[in-house]
Amino acid sequence: MIVKGRTFASRTDRLDAMNAALDRELGRLAQRVGSSQSALLTEMVQHHLGLRKAGGSRGKRLRANIALLSCEAFGRRYADAIWAAVAVELVHNFSLVFDDVQDHDELRRGRASVWKLWGVNQAINAGAALEALVTRAVIDLLPPRHVDRLRPALSLLSESMLALCRGQVLDLQFEQRVDVSVDEYLEMIGLKTAALFECAARLGGVAAGVGEASLEKAGKFGYHLGIAFQVIDDIVGVWGSTTQTGKPVGSDLKNGKKTLPTLIALKGGAAGNRRVLRSLLTRARFTAAEMETARAIIGQSNAEVVCRRQAAEHLAEARLQLFGMTERPNWAVRALAEMVTTLESSLV
Amino acid sequence: MIVKGRTFASRTDRLDAMNAALDRELGRLAQRVGSSQSALLTEMVQHHLGLRKAGGSRGKRLRANIALLSCEAFGRRYADAIWAAVAVELVHNFSLVFDDVQDHDELRRGRASVWKLWGVNQAINAGAALEALVTRAVIDLLPPRHVDRLRPALSLLSESMLALCRGQVLDLQFEQRVDVSVDEYLEMIGLKTAALFECAARLGGVAAGVGEASLEKAGKFGYHLGIAFQVIDDIVGVWGSTTQTGKPVGSDLKNGKKTLPTLIALKGGAAGNRRVLRSLLTRARFTAAEMETARAIIGQSNAEVVCRRQAAEHLAEARLQLFGMTERPNWAVRALAEMVTTLESSLV
Repeated sequence: MIVKGRTFASRTDRLDAMNAALDRELGRLAQRVGSSQSALLTEMVQHHLGLRKAGGSRGKRLRANIALLSCEAFGRRYADAIWAAVAVELVHNFSLVFDDVQDHDELRRGRASVWKLWGVNQAINAGAALEALVTRAVIDLLPPRHVDRLRPALSLLSESMLALCRGQVLDLQFEQRVDVSVDEYLEMIGLKTAALFECAARLGGVAAGVGEASLEKAGKFGYHLGIAFQVIDDIVGVWGSTTQTGKPVGSDLKNGKKTLPTLIALKGGAAGNRRVLRSLLTRARFTAAEMETARAIIGQSNAEVVCRRQAAEHLAEARLQLFGMTERPNWAVRALAEMVTTLESSLV
Repeated sequence: MIVKGRTFASRTDRLDAMNAALDRELGRLAQRVGSSQSALLTEMVQHHLGLRKAGGSRGKRLRANIALLSCEAFGRRYADAIWAAVAVELVHNFSLVFDDVQDHDELRRGRASVWKLWGVNQAINAGAALEALVTRAVIDLLPPRHVDRLRPALSLLSESMLALCRGQVLDLQFEQRVDVSVDEYLEMIGLKTAALFECAARLGGVAAGVGEASLEKAGKFGYHLGIAFQVIDDIVGVWGSTTQTGKPVGSDLKNGKKTLPTLIALKGGAAGNRRVLRSLLTRARFTAAEMETARAIIGQSNAEVVCRRQAAEHLAEARLQLFGMTERPNWAVRALAEMVTTLESSLV
């Protein structure tokens, strides 16, 4: 198979080429974020993005890949959507730098988090710089012939950044409450997680120059995938290992952080268990033993079953929207479908 | 005098109208930053911007006024530059929210700072939201007929946001050092303060649709005004009162924060004094007595004279650039000149 003079043996080769292009552009931007005097800014951004050493974890880059694949799904080359992929990756990463500060998470992608290495104050600067870099990336990378896409692109991106901030405000407010409803929680992750997945899929469509009806479908695909992704992340956060998450075991449970399994166990478990769990969640910080008690109580409730069902429903909806996006599914549609399948298989 | 059907008795009336327009747009954006669920985001932004109560201090809005007046100086109505004024005001304010967290400043514009009221974590969300709002504001407020100005506008704004981050990285790094040179310091305030003044003046030119040569002059005017402004702020930071600064007396001296007066006293004072001052600056935190000692040592050096001379030189350069901006100085050029004069008179 030949694309623009290059031979691709397989879908994997194409995905590798896409991610190499992404690395290149993120590397360039990281290089330019700090001036010669303020090299620390570049160092922090490179460290966080995993660009300091070959083989450093760079995260799954799901959002960036959704943007690129969405563009290809609509029949355009991913090169037209590099700006979109880089931008959503930066949005995701500025929020991670701030999240780690806010949650006191010392590990990110198996490395020390930015605040852990350079302190909270410099980490705030790194987060703010990554956020400023979002607009910079679009300006620098959008092909000049597509200048008419600047406005819709930055409108979607700034809206998704605001959604992230709103979601994070709620997430922190929920820490102080024990009466959070499942609906409130779903609205929160809609803002904190799904909005950026939605934005990524839509931006791929903007890069491909498709109309509003197609953007709408792409957006819904992204949104449902995002909700499912977060619910599965919640499941792993309670029952997963550090190898899976790159974070300490049960880190979601500490600080009274609300996740879907916890909320379901608070609502649907045995009365005695609910009382114990509620009282545990008002602690400022869990001991290891308390963490195990909380895990056991959540495990005894119907939380896991309900969470898996929720995730499965959103994945089914994502798949439906995906196949509505284009009349003729191409390799990219199949790659996006594989994302859905991979998440589904983690539910079995 | 009649402008678009409204009668302006004086320059003050025009400035008042400008600032009322600014209030209106900032108020709208603050309203929209938080969704109904995340009303806290709106509350924090409104509090910080002084929009919660009539009469709440909203800051001097120097940068926003520079953008508006620069547009008028080039012969266009300020209404064409509202987007620019709102954007630079938001850039300034996101950095203030983060600065207050980083410096543990409990007071801002005579009110409790955002982190003091809502905690560091929520303050980070407020700062991130204000930063995201910069791009949003330009997209929402730029007149559709000026869509070709979107790219240069956002290019300047994102660059000035990155400059702010770089400057803040340096400012914090300088806290850990006693060997900061005056040149390094001037580069730092160039990034942390003057870059946004420069951006504001340039954006006014972009809003007026003038060419690069004019933008260059406007930029230099802004830059020199910004450096002078910061140096004067440093002078007030050492010798001023809380009434003048809205911050606790000597707050710049604590935490080993480097300012121009301190650096000059460290270099040019009597040997014994320099030793004492250097050792004071390595403390984690000053007592009231130590603060007085530091102030006295800086007062005995030639710092105040040198600072005043530096500020005066930059103000003279700003005035020169200002009168090169247009052939025929109008009311806005005179208003900008008055900014220079006001700063000059604070030096006498």
